[in-house]
Amino acid sequence: MPASPLAPAWLSFPEDVNALRPLEWAAGVSRSENDDALSIQGISVTDLAAEFGTPLYVMDADDFRARARAFKNAFDAAFQDICGGVDVYYAGKAFLSFDVARWVKDEGLRLDTCSGGELALALRAGLDPENIGLHGNNKSKAEITKAIEVGLGRIVVDSLDELERVSQIAEQLGKQANVMLRLTPGVHAHTHEFIATAHEDQKFGLSMVEGDPLLDGAGEVEGKSPAAVAVSRGLKDPNINLLGLHSHIGSQIFDTDGFALAAERMVTFLGAMSQDHGVVLKELDLGGGFGIAYTEQDEPRTPEELSTQMAEIVKSTCAKVGIESPRISIEPGRSIAGPSTFTLYEIGVRKTVIVDSELGDSPRHYVSVDGGMSDNARPVLYDADYSAVLASRTSQADAIISRVVGKHCESGDIVVKDAYLPADLTAGDLLAVPATGAYCWALASNYNYLGRPAVVAVSGGEAQLMIRRETEDDLFDRDLGAK
Amino acid sequence: MPASPLAPAWLSFPEDVNALRPLEWAAGVSRSENDDALSIQGISVTDLAAEFGTPLYVMDADDFRARARAFKNAFDAAFQDICGGVDVYYAGKAFLSFDVARWVKDEGLRLDTCSGGELALALRAGLDPENIGLHGNNKSKAEITKAIEVGLGRIVVDSLDELERVSQIAEQLGKQANVMLRLTPGVHAHTHEFIATAHEDQKFGLSMVEGDPLLDGAGEVEGKSPAAVAVSRGLKDPNINLLGLHSHIGSQIFDTDGFALAAERMVTFLGAMSQDHGVVLKELDLGGGFGIAYTEQDEPRTPEELSTQMAEIVKSTCAKVGIESPRISIEPGRSIAGPSTFTLYEIGVRKTVIVDSELGDSPRHYVSVDGGMSDNARPVLYDADYSAVLASRTSQADAIISRVVGKHCESGDIVVKDAYLPADLTAGDLLAVPATGAYCWALASNYNYLGRPAVVAVSGGEAQLMIRRETEDDLFDRDLGAK
Repeated sequence: MPASPLAPAWLSFPEDVNALRPLEWAAGVSRSENDDALSIQGISVTDLAAEFGTPLYVMDADDFRARARAFKNAFDAAFQDICGGVDVYYAGKAFLSFDVARWVKDEGLRLDTCSGGELALALRAGLDPENIGLHGNNKSKAEITKAIEVGLGRIVVDSLDELERVSQIAEQLGKQANVMLRLTPGVHAHTHEFIATAHEDQKFGLSMVEGDPLLDGAGEVEGKSPAAVAVSRGLKDPNINLLGLHSHIGSQIFDTDGFALAAERMVTFLGAMSQDHGVVLKELDLGGGFGIAYTEQDEPRTPEELSTQMAEIVKSTCAKVGIESPRISIEPGRSIAGPSTFTLYEIGVRKTVIVDSELGDSPRHYVSVDGGMSDNARPVLYDADYSAVLASRTSQADAIISRVVGKHCESGDIVVKDAYLPADLTAGDLLAVPATGAYCWALASNYNYLGRPAVVAVSGGEAQLMIRRETEDDLFDRDLGAK
Repeated sequence: MPASPLAPAWLSFPEDVNALRPLEWAAGVSRSENDDALSIQGISVTDLAAEFGTPLYVMDADDFRARARAFKNAFDAAFQDICGGVDVYYAGKAFLSFDVARWVKDEGLRLDTCSGGELALALRAGLDPENIGLHGNNKSKAEITKAIEVGLGRIVVDSLDELERVSQIAEQLGKQANVMLRLTPGVHAHTHEFIATAHEDQKFGLSMVEGDPLLDGAGEVEGKSPAAVAVSRGLKDPNINLLGLHSHIGSQIFDTDGFALAAERMVTFLGAMSQDHGVVLKELDLGGGFGIAYTEQDEPRTPEELSTQMAEIVKSTCAKVGIESPRISIEPGRSIAGPSTFTLYEIGVRKTVIVDSELGDSPRHYVSVDGGMSDNARPVLYDADYSAVLASRTSQADAIISRVVGKHCESGDIVVKDAYLPADLTAGDLLAVPATGAYCWALASNYNYLGRPAVVAVSGGEAQLMIRRETEDDLFDRDLGAK
C-alpha cells in the first residue's frame, strides 16, 4: 500500500512500521529481537498492562533523571567561566509528583512551582525552601504568605500590583521576600519561529517599554517603563530582596535565535538599570521552553547545543554592555519530563471512513483506544501532533494512514491525528504513544467520569506504581449527594 | 471613555456596565435595588463567597429543573399527535451529579450516559435502568456487560465492530441487548452554519453511503452502506433488540435547518429499511446540540421553537416517505445545564497593556481571577467566548475593554477574552461569569495542582453544597510517594 494523500506533508511512509524513532522514546524503551512486544528496561508492555491496567503512563525514571542531570551538567560547564555555573529549576508544571521532586533535588536541580499546591508538594517532599521558586501571574495572599514564611529562594513577581502585595505581606511577617521580576522582553517563540514585538498583549510580566501604563485602568503613566519602575521600587523597598530579572519567551522552541534576542534585551536592560541605580542585579533567569520530539517533524537541540549557544550570547552581550554576567538560571520542564514517558492504551473498535481528497476518495483508518482527551488534552488544546506504534506485537501488515481516537463523547477527541499504523490492528492490541511525560497527566481531567490513569515509574529494571489509578469511589468522593 | 478599537465586532459598548443581559443568566439571578451585589434567589454573592470560598460554581437548581421541564413539555406537546410524545434524555456529559440525576428523573426525563462512570452514578442515584442510554464510540467490555446485565433501555451502538461485541456479550449473558444504531447523516452543524456532506471524516457512527467500507482495514466493501448492513444484522441477530436509529449533528446550534436536513435523511433511510425488511424501526433519536447564550452574539431558540420546527419536519418527511413516525427522542445537555450556573471568582492583580491596533496604540485591561483554565477549559479548548460582570458591587467607573485571565502558568489561560468591565475593578472584588453550567466542571482539571471548585446548588432560596471543593489532601491522595 502506497503513501496516502491524506498524510500531512511532514509524515513519511515508514520503511518498517514496527520501528521506533529513537528521539521520541525514553532511553530504556526497545523492541527486542526475541520478543515482539515493546519493552522498557527489559519489562514487556504486555506485563505492565496485565499488572497495572490501561491506559497507563509508563515513565522511565532513569531517563528522567539522566535528562535532568544532562541539563545541569551541560549548563554548568558552558557557563562556568561566565558566572560560575547555572541554577537549573525543573518546571514542575510539566509533571510533578513526590518522587519527581526528590529526584530533582538528588540530581542537583532546583524546583520551579507555580501554585500553592505545587509548593505544598515540594515542601512536603522535603525540598529546601531556598531551592524553590514560585511563579504565577496572580498569586493569592495565602500563596505569597507561605512563600515568605518558609523563606522561599525566589518569588517571581509578575506585576506592580503584585510587588506591592508581596511587600505588604513581607512587612506584616517581619521578613524580607526574595524577589525576581518577570519582564516581557517582546520576544515570542514557538518551534521554528519567533516574533519580536515591543508591546506584549499577554497576562504575564512587566513591560520594558518606556511610557507604558503602570497600573490598572488606562491612567498613571510615567516616563519610565513599568519594568524600570518595578526595579526602582524593589531596590528601595526594605521588605524586598531584589535578586534579579526573569523572562520566558514561549514553549516547544527549537530555534535558539529567540533566546538570543531575549537574552540580549534582558542583559541590555540590566546594564541600563546598573547605570540608573549603581548596582548590577545578581540573577537573570532565561526561562524554559526547550522543544522535544513528538513526531519526526521535531528536531530538538541537546542541552549541550542550547547551553553553548546561550553562553556565547550572554557572554558577548555582557561584554558589549560592560557589566559582569549575572548568575544565570533556566527552567526546563517538558525537555526533562516529556520524553521519559509513553502512554499505553488498549485498542478497541476500528472503522475505515472514505475521505474526499484532492487525489480522489481515500480511506482513513480510525482506531479507538481506551483513553483520550482526559489523559492527553494536548491534541485538542493545542492541535498537537503525536506518533504511535503497535506495542504488544509486531505486524507484517501494510502501513495504513490512521487516526487514533479516544473513547470520549466528543468528535475532537483525537490522540494521534496522523500516523501510519499496521492495517491489522485489532481489539486487545496495545498501542504506545511516546513523549507524553509533560502536560498530559498534569492536564488530565475526569471528562465523562473517566478515572485518570496510573503512573508507573521504571528504574533499575523494576516497575513501581508512582500514582495510582483513579477509581469510581474517588470520582464520587466529593459529591455530597452520593452519601 | 468610548468604544475600544480592540473590541470584537459583535461586542457593543454597554449603556450600563452593571446591567445583566437576561439570556445569559439563570432565572434566579438579579441585582436588587437595595443591594449592589448580584444575588441568586435573594442570596448575595458576597455571602456565598464568604461561606463557600471562590472560585465557586453557583447553580440555580430551580432554573435547571425548569429548563428540563420546558424541554419535556414543549416536545411532548409538539409531537403528541405525531408519535405520542418525545423521550427527552438529559445528556449527562454536560454536567452530572447525584442530585442532578435525581432531578432529571423527577422531571420526567431520561438520562444519556457515555461511560461506565456516568452509568455507575446513574444507577447508584436510583434511576431505572430502562430510562438510561449508553453512548460512546469505544465502550469497553465491562461497560457493555454492565449495561446488558442491568437491562439498560438503550445502548447506542457506534460501529459494526461494536455491534458484534454487544451481540457476543449479550449471548454470553443470555440476555437481549436494547440497541440503537448511531448513523452519520452527513450533516455537521455549529451555531449559525451547517455543512452537508456525504462522507464523514469522524470517529462516530455508521456511514449511510452505499459501498463504503464495512470493517477495518481498507477492504471489505459491499454494495450496501455500513448503516444498512448494521440494520440488517441487528434485525437478524437474536441477541439484539434493535430499537431504532440515532443521529447527532453537532453542538451549540442555533439554526434549525441542519436538524431539518438530518431528520429528513434519517426518516428517508428508515423508509428504505422498511422497504428492505418489512418493518419500521420504532425509535429515532435526533440528538442534542441546542445552543445557549454565552454572550450577546448568541440568540438561542426556545424549546417551543425547536420542538415546533422539528415536529413539522418529522411529520412532513414521514408523510412523504409513507411511514408512520417512529417514537422521537432528543438529548439536550448544555441547553438545560449551561444557563443554570455562573462561576464566581475573586479578582487579584490587574495591569494595562498597550496593544497596537489599526487605529493606533490602544489600552487593554487585564484582570486576573483566582481560577482559570482548570475550572473552565472551554476558552482555551474551543476559543469559546464568555461574558462577565462585576458581582460584589456596582461601579460608576468607565467601561474599559478588558480581558479576564486565570492564575495558571500559561499565557493562553483566558476566562473571558473580550468584555467591557468597569475600569475600577480591584483586588477582592467578585466577578461572575454566566453560563458555565455545561462542560466546565465536567472538563475541570488539576492543572498546576489547583483543586477543583465547589458546586453550590440554590433552591427555594437556600444554598446547599452539592460537590465539595478539592483539598490539597485530595490532590496528593493517589501519589504513593506522599505517604
